[in-house]
Amino acid sequence: MGWLHDGHRALMQRARAENRTTVVSIFVNPRQFGDPADLAQYPRNEARDVAACEAEGVDIVFAPTVDEVYPVGFDTSVQVGAIARPLEGLARPGHFEGVATVVAILFGLVRAERAYFGQKDAQQVAVIRRMAIDLAIPTEVIACPTIREPDGLAMSSRNVHLSPAERAAAPVLHRALMAARHAWERGERSGSRLRGIMESTLAGEPLARVEYVSCAKATTLEELDELDGPALLSLAVEIGTTRLIDNVPLG
Amino acid sequence: MGWLHDGHRALMQRARAENRTTVVSIFVNPRQFGDPADLAQYPRNEARDVAACEAEGVDIVFAPTVDEVYPVGFDTSVQVGAIARPLEGLARPGHFEGVATVVAILFGLVRAERAYFGQKDAQQVAVIRRMAIDLAIPTEVIACPTIREPDGLAMSSRNVHLSPAERAAAPVLHRALMAARHAWERGERSGSRLRGIMESTLAGEPLARVEYVSCAKATTLEELDELDGPALLSLAVEIGTTRLIDNVPLG
Repeated sequence: MGWLHDGHRALMQRARAENRTTVVSIFVNPRQFGDPADLAQYPRNEARDVAACEAEGVDIVFAPTVDEVYPVGFDTSVQVGAIARPLEGLARPGHFEGVATVVAILFGLVRAERAYFGQKDAQQVAVIRRMAIDLAIPTEVIACPTIREPDGLAMSSRNVHLSPAERAAAPVLHRALMAARHAWERGERSGSRLRGIMESTLAGEPLARVEYVSCAKATTLEELDELDGPALLSLAVEIGTTRLIDNVPLG
Repeated sequence: MGWLHDGHRALMQRARAENRTTVVSIFVNPRQFGDPADLAQYPRNEARDVAACEAEGVDIVFAPTVDEVYPVGFDTSVQVGAIARPLEGLARPGHFEGVATVVAILFGLVRAERAYFGQKDAQQVAVIRRMAIDLAIPTEVIACPTIREPDGLAMSSRNVHLSPAERAAAPVLHRALMAARHAWERGERSGSRLRGIMESTLAGEPLARVEYVSCAKATTLEELDELDGPALLSLAVEIGTTRLIDNVPLG
């Protein structure tokens, strides 16, 4: 969606290393925003984005218009079931329908062998992978590790909206995740206690308003009572008026 | 969906004439049947179907199992909007969701340059064409004229279910369509009068139970009061326990 940062650059570098030709798509997809104000204020700077792609040695920047992605009379939607329902699916109704549909279209238009996504949007990657497998789309979906600022804040195009005070508060997301991860490393296996650790860390930051904290089964994103296999810690927090998400895997 | 008849053979002949390699897919798709009994009694004979494909010089018969089309954990659906809602969409809830989804999958698996469908299922062709355009699937959707028995009955795999008396009654569908078409040729432009002509023709056949008659705008399938451009006459009728559909274009 553009406003490219070091997380996107890491995707480009991985794609360049593993493929002969690298395409970057830049498209702020109106159909995945529930809130028109959120769409309107999503940051954009195509010239700067193209320069970043060029600096990374990308071969093609594909920056279609809305009319090119959605032809006249467009009237199709792609929906993924259970994996798209909790967490971001609950918090942002219609969001993953918009994501699954636009990514199916972009996969159809670009026809890449591999597509690289950031693990920061862990549920998004899971939804897209499910969609691509189910619709027999021959593009392999590859998740890449989240890239962070030195203080732990996950790179995100939305970080630009943070005021200096909010920016100083924002690393609390990562601190909450790491506090729960450290407890897990010391043997904690109670989902509710791990969620509680995240909540109490976030409660220490006055600028943070918690939307959800989750400790879920990695494969299904169902909340866990007891951890007995790979899990995902994730959270969504408003810092001022900016909504941020982050996650770390367990196991 | 197999139980291949002369309508399917006409599709194969056209595909052979226009392409270097011809693939026939045979798959009775459980997800497009609302009624399990309808699915269970759908006629099947793979050996006979393969022989028919061979006789037509088809290169590949693709007859996947249900598990091959729907992988473990399958949870994606493709839905088309307005064009899928009236007529068969109203009569068979979920039908076109099943059709759009399975055809998207088959297009993904087969990756044909062109796909040939019978105009007998006019709304199905419109739904599939909309889906393929919208999802940027590089398979061109081609509609081929309905093939009929000498008495006008449209070829259909379902015709096998008709008893001799029902088979004798079934051409009333085509007679009703032709009566309305002849009225249109003589200048009739009232949608309700054209629908009335079909209804009164069908009323003359005691074995026929009308589900719908339609005189709709060709591009949108919305019912018309007055015809001022291309239209589609269509109907769905039960003959005994067998549901038959048919249509003819106007203009």
